[in-house]
Amino acid sequence: MKRVVIVGMGFGGVRAARELAGQGLEIVLVDRNNYHLFQPLLYQVATAGLEQESIAYPVRAMARSWPGSRFILAEVSGADLDARQLQTSAGDIPYDYLIVGGGSVTNYFGNEAVARHAFDLKKLADAEQLRNHILWSCEKAVAESNPERRRALMTFVIVGGGPTGVEFAGALIELVHYVLSKDYPELPAREARIMLIEAADRLLLAMPEKLSAYSARKLREMGVELLFGRKVTGATAETVELDGSDTIAAHTLFWSAGVCAAPLAAKLGLPQAGGGRVPVTGQLSVAGRPEVFVVGDMALLQQDGSPLPMVAPVAMQMGVHAAKTILAREWQRPITPFRYRDKGSMATIGRSAAVATTHGLSLTGYPAWLAWLLLHLYYLIGFRNRTVVMLNWAYYYWFHERQVRLITDNERNR
Amino acid sequence: MKRVVIVGMGFGGVRAARELAGQGLEIVLVDRNNYHLFQPLLYQVATAGLEQESIAYPVRAMARSWPGSRFILAEVSGADLDARQLQTSAGDIPYDYLIVGGGSVTNYFGNEAVARHAFDLKKLADAEQLRNHILWSCEKAVAESNPERRRALMTFVIVGGGPTGVEFAGALIELVHYVLSKDYPELPAREARIMLIEAADRLLLAMPEKLSAYSARKLREMGVELLFGRKVTGATAETVELDGSDTIAAHTLFWSAGVCAAPLAAKLGLPQAGGGRVPVTGQLSVAGRPEVFVVGDMALLQQDGSPLPMVAPVAMQMGVHAAKTILAREWQRPITPFRYRDKGSMATIGRSAAVATTHGLSLTGYPAWLAWLLLHLYYLIGFRNRTVVMLNWAYYYWFHERQVRLITDNERNR
Repeated sequence: MKRVVIVGMGFGGVRAARELAGQGLEIVLVDRNNYHLFQPLLYQVATAGLEQESIAYPVRAMARSWPGSRFILAEVSGADLDARQLQTSAGDIPYDYLIVGGGSVTNYFGNEAVARHAFDLKKLADAEQLRNHILWSCEKAVAESNPERRRALMTFVIVGGGPTGVEFAGALIELVHYVLSKDYPELPAREARIMLIEAADRLLLAMPEKLSAYSARKLREMGVELLFGRKVTGATAETVELDGSDTIAAHTLFWSAGVCAAPLAAKLGLPQAGGGRVPVTGQLSVAGRPEVFVVGDMALLQQDGSPLPMVAPVAMQMGVHAAKTILAREWQRPITPFRYRDKGSMATIGRSAAVATTHGLSLTGYPAWLAWLLLHLYYLIGFRNRTVVMLNWAYYYWFHERQVRLITDNERNR
Repeated sequence: MKRVVIVGMGFGGVRAARELAGQGLEIVLVDRNNYHLFQPLLYQVATAGLEQESIAYPVRAMARSWPGSRFILAEVSGADLDARQLQTSAGDIPYDYLIVGGGSVTNYFGNEAVARHAFDLKKLADAEQLRNHILWSCEKAVAESNPERRRALMTFVIVGGGPTGVEFAGALIELVHYVLSKDYPELPAREARIMLIEAADRLLLAMPEKLSAYSARKLREMGVELLFGRKVTGATAETVELDGSDTIAAHTLFWSAGVCAAPLAAKLGLPQAGGGRVPVTGQLSVAGRPEVFVVGDMALLQQDGSPLPMVAPVAMQMGVHAAKTILAREWQRPITPFRYRDKGSMATIGRSAAVATTHGLSLTGYPAWLAWLLLHLYYLIGFRNRTVVMLNWAYYYWFHERQVRLITDNERNR
């Protein structure tokens, strides 16, 4: 029986496994975490809206319904591509086919000061750490008598006007205005400052301009300060530097201004191009290595003149296609090259406010927000997780309350 | 306005604050965590049944409805009892009345090897750490080819046949048999070994003998090995030593064989007696310091010839009584000395199996289990937490599934 090894249980890896299950192949799933993480909702964990457990789903729970599969919890350290062997912390794993979906990491473009002081949202622990930091900043602000230092504690700088930056900015200012203003009556809520900094001249560059304008107007109405055409060039624990000159006193810097392929690509010795991504053929395999597939953020594929974006829908479609390609080869059937079918994109801004674009159609406000909600619930894995998330959302919607306002690492911050 | 400082937002501190709120006193709440923790359900977090967020409730959320109160997140370092000043990491806090409810910590009776290797359940982080360890042991067992080492990885030794030991043993064996057996088809579930060791000759010493017998029979039916009249005297990372001689190969040791007052009692310079507890008068204050009250596990009070047990109901009643004593003094009204009204005790063993005793009445099986469920839901603070916990329980009851099977500290264990 031929063995397919899938590295990375993100959106791409999970779809590939689902497609390959029960087709007479041995499927070995490898991840350094024992769960699939629903990254698009990390920002809601960071803003105390969801418990971290509700956006993670155990791989072994999924693998139960995938005949022929087994899971190995291990960190991949390298590969002998000629010998078709994967090297991991749990030993070497030989493969006939390899599907790699290692995802992406935050790209600080070599700025070490920013990398050291900025928060990002890639791992489950990142979200908990950021939530702890936000809540600690409020606790420190309450105890701070110097108004300037208090203001710095309550200033949150968000870099990058893509979906993550926009969603986090909206969720954070709602947390401050609806929830923390009641928790910290000692703190004037108006003193909290949330700044969103974008190097280009508009938000959500991948969307039509009118949706960018709607998002900017909404965020400004909610109280977010928007700065366009500016770049963050440096940081300390208590300041953020703009364009190499201006300094903002701020204890929180959140970075969502760039991603690059995870270091796994380099570890495996795969060829790398822009952003560390691995160029793949129309079959999603590496040139000269038809048995090695790369899917998701890590894969670099041009379509209609530009590289496919590093987003979940691309990863999901790639995962399915890589699996189908393997099955087609095994059954000596033809298969067409991969082509991404763009069903649109969306971002939520706040209560009853979101933007969505699909097939040339643009939606804003309540309909977009409802579509966002339903789609995210749909793609979340697990009945229990869906129920808990829905419950949290309903609770927040009706009671203006986010309950997960827990500081879980008090030792570190004191 | 006179100021009451309450240290510790456990069962005692919360009840005291609730009682004092809105009575014209200034109430300062101090805790090193920003949440009240529902400790009786920690074992369910440790056995993947509940997310940690569902058994913790932010102090500031409670304090909103307590007029005259404010919260300070701080670690208490000492006190100048003569000057009526509390020393904390957030500075000195003067008081007119002080209520201390610092709770208890695990007592290893000076056995350093056991203290180093054993797990306990006192803090929220303990539960997450124990869950991670249990799941990691399974992952390691899957990868282990040596049958003896695999058996050691799957051997869990629980010390102490009190409610915590009994509830954890029952929840753990159900986790293994109902859930992990499906997650790890590679592991023979019968290979898992759960041992409960009690130095006395029966479980649940505080309950009538027939309930002890029922509990022992139930646990044995479920597959737990019970050892009576034995003591754990030593431990390494991979072994547990019994009575100074026998050695059990086991990678997990859970200790619930003793508690003592939290180190806070010593830090405050209060007099200490057995188990580090602070002897209190019938007014729950310290002899010679009528303005200093100690409540809960930390307080030592004899009633009918024996010290009151270190359990949540005692802490709650003490918290209320300390608050009432302060109000009585302020209003120059008489107040009777504290007297604990024992409403009974209970422990759950497994699905539809629990024991309960109240007013001389003994319950077992389904009625006791239902009473346990309802009472724990009732005492859990927060509508959302109750809903999430109820949902988890219903889900587990119907689907035999516990969803929080996440390993969240994979770096540490690898």
